[in-house]
Amino acid sequence: MNDHYYALIMAGGVGTRLWPLSREDRPKQALPLIGDRTMFQIALDRLAPLFTPDRMLVVAGSNHVALLKAQGPGIPNENFIVEPMGRGTAPAIALGAIHLGRKHPDAMMAVLTADHFIADEAGFRRALLAAGKVAARGHLVTLGVTPDTPATGYGYIERGEVVESVENFLAYRVMSFREKPSAAAAERFLADGRHSWNSGMFIWRVDRFLAELARTMPEFCAQLDEIDRALGTPGESSTLAKVWPRVASQTVDYGVMEKARDVVVIPIDIGWNDIGSWASLLDVLPGDADGNVCIHAEHLNAGSRNVLVHGRGRIVATIGLEDVIIVDTEDVVLVCRKDQAEAVKRMVDRLKDEGRTDIL
Amino acid sequence: MNDHYYALIMAGGVGTRLWPLSREDRPKQALPLIGDRTMFQIALDRLAPLFTPDRMLVVAGSNHVALLKAQGPGIPNENFIVEPMGRGTAPAIALGAIHLGRKHPDAMMAVLTADHFIADEAGFRRALLAAGKVAARGHLVTLGVTPDTPATGYGYIERGEVVESVENFLAYRVMSFREKPSAAAAERFLADGRHSWNSGMFIWRVDRFLAELARTMPEFCAQLDEIDRALGTPGESSTLAKVWPRVASQTVDYGVMEKARDVVVIPIDIGWNDIGSWASLLDVLPGDADGNVCIHAEHLNAGSRNVLVHGRGRIVATIGLEDVIIVDTEDVVLVCRKDQAEAVKRMVDRLKDEGRTDIL
Repeated sequence: MNDHYYALIMAGGVGTRLWPLSREDRPKQALPLIGDRTMFQIALDRLAPLFTPDRMLVVAGSNHVALLKAQGPGIPNENFIVEPMGRGTAPAIALGAIHLGRKHPDAMMAVLTADHFIADEAGFRRALLAAGKVAARGHLVTLGVTPDTPATGYGYIERGEVVESVENFLAYRVMSFREKPSAAAAERFLADGRHSWNSGMFIWRVDRFLAELARTMPEFCAQLDEIDRALGTPGESSTLAKVWPRVASQTVDYGVMEKARDVVVIPIDIGWNDIGSWASLLDVLPGDADGNVCIHAEHLNAGSRNVLVHGRGRIVATIGLEDVIIVDTEDVVLVCRKDQAEAVKRMVDRLKDEGRTDIL
Repeated sequence: MNDHYYALIMAGGVGTRLWPLSREDRPKQALPLIGDRTMFQIALDRLAPLFTPDRMLVVAGSNHVALLKAQGPGIPNENFIVEPMGRGTAPAIALGAIHLGRKHPDAMMAVLTADHFIADEAGFRRALLAAGKVAARGHLVTLGVTPDTPATGYGYIERGEVVESVENFLAYRVMSFREKPSAAAAERFLADGRHSWNSGMFIWRVDRFLAELARTMPEFCAQLDEIDRALGTPGESSTLAKVWPRVASQTVDYGVMEKARDVVVIPIDIGWNDIGSWASLLDVLPGDADGNVCIHAEHLNAGSRNVLVHGRGRIVATIGLEDVIIVDTEDVVLVCRKDQAEAVKRMVDRLKDEGRTDIL
């Protein structure tokens, strides 16, 4: 095991589809979405057996960093890396990578998420350890989640032959990254047994990642170099503030991974869900005998099935509902058909267009 | 027109099926259910062109009378007749009748409701005037509402031949009162054109009603005499408190009208609805292009149809719902399928069994 194995926790974004609980200044990762602890706190708890707080780095937006610092008091202040604005995962990860590279040229990083649900936390940590060993040999490792449904909301990773075998985990050569597929394609991917969901979690050596970044995103790397040179100098903040707005948005999947060399995928089956929408929360959490899930509320029910009640301590009474989501917040109540949970984003977009900053 | 024509406004009951807005101490008639004015205030406004406030009597429960007095400030205090507890409509009306009989032995009374919706208020007042003329001749008049659906939630009145004709209104002999019918019977009643809904509104001379009461409910009349003798004496309250708990509950329909002589029905078509449940409120009120009705709230909608939002100023967002009722109150949110709106009563009964006085 590399002595300089770090976790880079990606804590940007808002989680728009979890409106009205998520707001611009109350992002998904900072919400107690599934219990008393916030998703960010749960992520830290989950990683604590592997990474001491000084080996956790957090990338977050400037408007969220104070909130996250309060929720992760053990993490040193300098480990919070602030993005002036969101520019996609490739620039965010790269920012973390140059910070880490300054600490230890031979550092290894696990790019992890602050807002995902993982049922089997011990299995997850075992996978991170195994992936670390594979990555130490120079591979760029992606954690691929074994699909149990033909989901169309995730990207898929197609695998080829086995490259490495480490402690019950197999690392396969990646044949292709597939964007969110059609329903028919998703059915095929599920059936052929050669595809994993793209979890957005990656493990690699910093030097290897930066080398592939230089090859795949040379224009951005010139900008990144300018930031890198300013790190630790009095001009660090002003340089970032000057350069970052000019950075083009890009995801690490399309910007780097699709074109990178020596990319492998380790399939894992750990009860993972990105909780992208209220519907996925209902799918993930254990319900009562009728499939109803109630968080932070008292649910009085007469004949309702498969209902999610996400509240704020008040009583929510339901009669005769099926497959419905109810989210009770201080100033907005949302009632949504489960199969239209994705439309929450469109409602939020409309509110943005209408300038409804009071409820965004 | 009789100079001593009074309105007896029945303002008892809670309106359990309109929980969680209605509560033990916030009964339906005292709620701003359809707009800014409460149902009681709307009833008073509607009657104001016919009855001066001193000719309005109000029968109410002891726990509601203060609330109603505040909402009907023009009505003299002594016109509020307090029932120590609910005993059904027959005793309540009889209590009003003996108060009126003391004022004017030849008084005539219109027994009216405090919590019903009437679209055509002018037509309603014309019917009351015509009914007053019919009642002056000694008939016991019931106002029968011309049905437009085979409702099973109302009682029906079957009519025979025409007895009187007054100003475009016809008074028919009543052949029978029918309890809430089966769906098949309701279909027949609607089709045969000889049935009206029992609106619970009656017009008669006080002397005629008391005479029929004496004949049909002699046991109760002995109790009523005891109360009557104490009216206006220092022992009035204590007598009522002593006698009333022993009075048997009875409706005026079954206790008196079914057996009374000279009962007539005047069919009226005035857009009447008793707003017995949230579903009826959705039926009665004009909706937007998709049939959605929003009261006391801001409704953000994406693709929902036939939804009732009854709020308290907060924002209610709905996505993809159909035929759903949402009631947002201070401490409880109710979300209910429209076609199960009657089940609200069962939920309240369950809460009573569980001793949930906090939300009753």
